[in-house]
Amino acid sequence: MARIERLRTVLREYELDGLVVTTLVNVRYLTGFTGSNGAVVVPVDGEVVLLTDGRYKDQAAAQTSGIEIVVDRDLLGGAAGRMRGCWAAETHTLSVDAHTELVDLSEARIVPGNRLVETLREVKDESEVDALRTACRISVEALEWLWQQGLVGRTERQIARLLESRMLELGAEAIAFETIVAAGEHSAIPHHEPTDRLLAPGDLLKVDFGARVDGYHADCTRTAVAGSPADWQREIHAAVHESQAAGVARCVEGGAVADVNTAARSSLEAAGWLEYFTTGLGHGVGLQIHEDPFIAAKHVGRLERRTVLTVEPGIYLPGRGGVRIEDTVAVGTLKNSNGPEVLTTTPTDLLEIA
Amino acid sequence: MARIERLRTVLREYELDGLVVTTLVNVRYLTGFTGSNGAVVVPVDGEVVLLTDGRYKDQAAAQTSGIEIVVDRDLLGGAAGRMRGCWAAETHTLSVDAHTELVDLSEARIVPGNRLVETLREVKDESEVDALRTACRISVEALEWLWQQGLVGRTERQIARLLESRMLELGAEAIAFETIVAAGEHSAIPHHEPTDRLLAPGDLLKVDFGARVDGYHADCTRTAVAGSPADWQREIHAAVHESQAAGVARCVEGGAVADVNTAARSSLEAAGWLEYFTTGLGHGVGLQIHEDPFIAAKHVGRLERRTVLTVEPGIYLPGRGGVRIEDTVAVGTLKNSNGPEVLTTTPTDLLEIA
Repeated sequence: MARIERLRTVLREYELDGLVVTTLVNVRYLTGFTGSNGAVVVPVDGEVVLLTDGRYKDQAAAQTSGIEIVVDRDLLGGAAGRMRGCWAAETHTLSVDAHTELVDLSEARIVPGNRLVETLREVKDESEVDALRTACRISVEALEWLWQQGLVGRTERQIARLLESRMLELGAEAIAFETIVAAGEHSAIPHHEPTDRLLAPGDLLKVDFGARVDGYHADCTRTAVAGSPADWQREIHAAVHESQAAGVARCVEGGAVADVNTAARSSLEAAGWLEYFTTGLGHGVGLQIHEDPFIAAKHVGRLERRTVLTVEPGIYLPGRGGVRIEDTVAVGTLKNSNGPEVLTTTPTDLLEIA
Repeated sequence: MARIERLRTVLREYELDGLVVTTLVNVRYLTGFTGSNGAVVVPVDGEVVLLTDGRYKDQAAAQTSGIEIVVDRDLLGGAAGRMRGCWAAETHTLSVDAHTELVDLSEARIVPGNRLVETLREVKDESEVDALRTACRISVEALEWLWQQGLVGRTERQIARLLESRMLELGAEAIAFETIVAAGEHSAIPHHEPTDRLLAPGDLLKVDFGARVDGYHADCTRTAVAGSPADWQREIHAAVHESQAAGVARCVEGGAVADVNTAARSSLEAAGWLEYFTTGLGHGVGLQIHEDPFIAAKHVGRLERRTVLTVEPGIYLPGRGGVRIEDTVAVGTLKNSNGPEVLTTTPTDLLEIA
């Protein structure tokens, strides 16, 4: 119930009487319930109620504690009847139609919830960092195994399947997201879906992947080369390598989120490659693969201890190839340090593979 | 563009000037674009525009044709500027906050979209039925292989991983949803997450799973028994078997959706087991694992040719065990027949496995 109490503290600050939680990942975060249909009513005072349907009756009871479980096909109606006063709803995800229904059914005044639970989720607790550590450890172990499998002559799809199977064998409950394996000119596409293109000598090979453990997602990218690198491949890899290290070094407790962005981008700019970096620099990671904080120049927040985020600069040269290096990084979790703990601990150098 | 033209016909019927499509699966359906960020502006007359961000510039161009691609970080702003008159928005999925932004930015009057694209998606075209056939073929081929692997003594998790790996080897691009493998008393939980429980002689083994091919999902459940079935296991399996066959038989072009439900439920009622059937009977399946039509007593629609849906009755005896049998069924797609084509063609009898 520690998470519920943190939420209640915030609700009191905003002088709200409660929050109705309809975003499933937030339902899971607050209660432990992992079913695909549920809503939670969190009053500032009084009992927390999890509403779900008949399919999940037993599961909800088994996964939660200290929470009343109500089985009701009409989740919104059931929630509405328990709301009095001024309540926040998760209007960033709640659909217009569901919101209309809630407003019609409830006596409460309903106001926007402004990502209250997402903000809490930015700072992980110990158990969450542990799950992320495990997910990242499985991921890099699978990757290091993959590099040894003889990849030249295999298709992007086959390479993706090999890596995924290995993560599952090593104990991942699922893959964290659809694996990107991009060979040769495909590596210039930031988010490429694996095809039947064969990996050939001289190709860059970009692999963006992760394992999921207890609902927590690892996110890691490495770019290798099949055989010996050409000068241009070496050059762009070195530029991304330096940029990524500069970004990771700024993942410091109390540091500005925007500084991570500035450090990595300035490095690419100094090397003359910034115009070929066309994506965001990184994002929080946890119960979702992409979650707050999203790293951007305009982000005004500071990094707190146990924030977990990715740092993933890249250079993408259309038609030729690209490089991305990405780590999942926890802030201030190492002993006697307020700096970064890289969770995806496998070398970031340009690896030459067969 | 046939799908866009079908949509425009409906928009004209409702006297709308256009639809702004923000639901990603609908974006994919209408344009072919599979990226994770996009919106489509579909005016009744004039050019269709797909908006996405810089990451997906090349992919959007490669995956679509006859559509203008606009790269804009502000999708809603970009869409809003292209809307004049009376436009529908997908208010069943569009968040309250995004809707507010759209209303603020646009000169158009914005009205609820009432699942316009979801309704179109209920009736598949030939290419969609083909993808579903392939996904189902891979699924049942993997299952028939699984039954031969010697499952007693393995954990639910291990069995799930075996089946998933086999589907990927057979050409699935991904698994369609998180595999349910439920042994013994766990089979009484309709939606059970695999655990480390070992399959033991005498256990029921319920497996609910599917492959995904070209974005299309297979959905299949079979329940086997480890060794020889006890009388109660035989009895509930026979009751579900009869109910499921009765439901499938009603998947007929022009038949009422509600009749599928009535036939399957009446069969369970006559056998005295209806109170232990606690879930919905079935759902449409396609680009989403659960989509329209949802089979329910109150559904007022009729089945059209090339509607694809699941029929999945079950009996769940808490603490003891349960049986579910589920097929993915296409309506009216067999030659010279307006009846069901079962796509998940593997026996539904109670299989005794080792």
